[in-house]
This record gives sequence, C-alpha cells and structure tokens, in this order.
Amino acid sequence: MIRESRLLLHWSPRSPYVRKVMIAAHEAGLEDRIDTVRTVVGGTTPHLELMEDNPLGKLPTLIPPDGTAIYDSYVIVEYFNTLKPAAGLIPREGPARIVALRRHALGNGILDILLQWLGERGRPAERQSEPHIALWRSKIAACIVALEAEADDLAATPFGIGHIAIGVALGYLDFRFKAEPWRPGQERLAAWFESFQRRPSVVAHPPVDDS
Amino acid sequence: MIRESRLLLHWSPRSPYVRKVMIAAHEAGLEDRIDTVRTVVGGTTPHLELMEDNPLGKLPTLIPPDGTAIYDSYVIVEYFNTLKPAAGLIPREGPARIVALRRHALGNGILDILLQWLGERGRPAERQSEPHIALWRSKIAACIVALEAEADDLAATPFGIGHIAIGVALGYLDFRFKAEPWRPGQERLAAWFESFQRRPSVVAHPPVDDS
Repeated sequence: MIRESRLLLHWSPRSPYVRKVMIAAHEAGLEDRIDTVRTVVGGTTPHLELMEDNPLGKLPTLIPPDGTAIYDSYVIVEYFNTLKPAAGLIPREGPARIVALRRHALGNGILDILLQWLGERGRPAERQSEPHIALWRSKIAACIVALEAEADDLAATPFGIGHIAIGVALGYLDFRFKAEPWRPGQERLAAWFESFQRRPSVVAHPPVDDS
Repeated sequence: MIRESRLLLHWSPRSPYVRKVMIAAHEAGLEDRIDTVRTVVGGTTPHLELMEDNPLGKLPTLIPPDGTAIYDSYVIVEYFNTLKPAAGLIPREGPARIVALRRHALGNGILDILLQWLGERGRPAERQSEPHIALWRSKIAACIVALEAEADDLAATPFGIGHIAIGVALGYLDFRFKAEPWRPGQERLAAWFESFQRRPSVVAHPPVDDS
C-alpha cells in the first residue's frame, strides 16, 4: 500500500479562516492527511518564513506534496474538492454553485470586517477610528438580517462551503464579539446555527484562544 | 428572436474589483449584456441601498435576471464562466484550476492590502498607523518578488482570472501608488504587464478617477 501523501498547513487555532479549512477537511475525510504547523501572524510584524510560501503572509496556507503553496482558504477548499469531489463541499455547477459561493463570500466578508474591527481595537486608543467601527457594526447588523431572511433556505440546502463560512462567521462573533449579541430577533438563524454547532466537524474544531 | 436578459452591475470606474469583472465580461463577450449603475461607496458612510442587495455594502454586486444578487467579484466571474464556459476565464479542473485560483487570490490579496493602505491614508494624520503602513509595504514588496519569479510561467499560461487579478493589482499600484514604484529589478513582470496592458479588454476598461 502506498502511503498517502501529506498536506502541510500553516495553522492557528485562533484563525477563523483556518477553522473553515479544518471543518472542510473533516467533512471531506482529509483531516488525517494534514500536518499542521503553528504559525503566528497578526499585529504589524511580517512573518518572513510564511511569506516565502505566501507573500501575503496570511493563514491558512497549504503546502501540498509538490511543494507549490495553495491559498487563500477558498482555494484550499477548492483543492480539497478536487481530491474528494464526492464530499460535495462545493456544488459542481449551476445555480446551486453560485448560491453556495455567494454564501461563502457573505460569510467570508463578515469575517473580513470582524478582523478589521478586531485590528482596530488592538490599536492605541488615540489611533482608533470611531466612524470605521460604526460602519463595521452597521454592516454586520445588515448581514445578520440578510442571513435571517435566508436561514430556512440555508437549512434546506445540502451542507457545504457556504454553510461553513456562515457558521464560522457567526461562531467568530460569539468568540471575539461577546459585547455585540446577534441572536435577538433572529430566531431562524439562531436555530440553524445551533444545528451547525452540533456537526461533528464543527465540534472537533472549536475556536481556541490559547494566547 | 428572444431579447437577451440583462445583467445589472453596481459599478464604479475607480474600483479595481469592478475593473476585474468588466475585463472578465469583455473577455467572455458578455459586456453588451451589462447595464452599469454608478454606485459610490468608500469612506465610512454605509450605502443603504446597495446593502439591500449586498449587506457587505461592497462593489461589485451583480443583479442577474432572477433578481438574486451575486457577489463578490470572484463569484461574479464564476457566474460569467457558467454563461460562457468556452471563454476559459477559469480552467475547469485539475492543477491548472488551482494555479489560476491561487494567482487570483494573490492579485486580489494585493488589492485588499492596497485598499486598506489607501483607507489609512484617508484618515486624519493623528489616527494613521505607521506600523501598519510599514507592514503593508513589506507585503506588497514580497508579492512583487513572488510575481517576478513566476512571470514567465504567467506569460505561458492561457489568459484567465489569475492574469486579470494580477494585472489589475499592478495597474492599481500605478493608479494610486505612484510613490511606490514596483518595476525596478522586476523586468519579467514588467514585460508581462506591458502585454497585459495591450489586451483590448484591458484597454477598454482603464481605471478612472473622476472624483
């Protein structure tokens, strides 16, 4: 028997983009092939070793057997999808594919806003911008309302990349933005998120703050 | 003859993400089906009308005939690809697909950094963060070096979404970051970019600052 080739992942338990990839790997049955290397990015110090593989210096970055780095998180999930198409991480074609990708873009866009917001909170108080925080808060609120409106359809669609991105985004709100409750008035979305939280792939990869 | 259905695009001549989409539409022969609506985002004022279609409040956002909004720019290009698969905007499968998507992620990641940088320059001087600007400058420099290393391969690969993202990112450096020259020492990348600049789709959609 040939030993399955290994995948090296620049990883952190705090990164929601890494979490998306780990949940996707679990769903596709690929988790056992991944070796994780703890990589600490963030703040304003460039990570020169990571930037040799990914000049953007971002997590996650995957190194497949041929050594050619793959990023960002979406492209890594596309790669998993080529290895295990039967897992259905991304619908192959048609309107279902576009809906799934649009949902992924929405979940990922929420994460992008939250990470900017978090970065802003990490600045010295006198260099923080209240107008930006107000803008981000209003966008997150609009996203939650939009998700509530499609929560029933989300629940009725085969699980895949869109669900992963949206669930990880809501989980990140709980993880880092406890002062910004999103559930009030959004019963259907909250119910869908409860079911997301019970999936084995999600349970196996919680966000962890080990700092 | 049935009139071809129209596509409505939230558009701006200044947005590099919109420019990616317009170049892709041109390459796919879809440009004539698109009606553009000038949408001004940026700064810290939420665009409530746009946010009804895309709660992230970002450009580009496409409204196809069925009225269900499609975003972000990558997903719009995926949609174009389903309408005109023969245009080859995205390789259908295999390693070529992953390489093209990784190149798209690199070009788009450069744009994300440049837009953050630009936003920082737009803040009051006392709320700007020099360490962030230094980080972004170092990342852009690393990206240019990485692109130079694969410039010959880029030139040898059938034109598609990866080329569009990278070309638009380099064009945005020229457009908004004239004080940050990227060509010195990067002859192969500069040569490839010259050929990109001569494509009819690129010539037809220059970045324009009409403010």
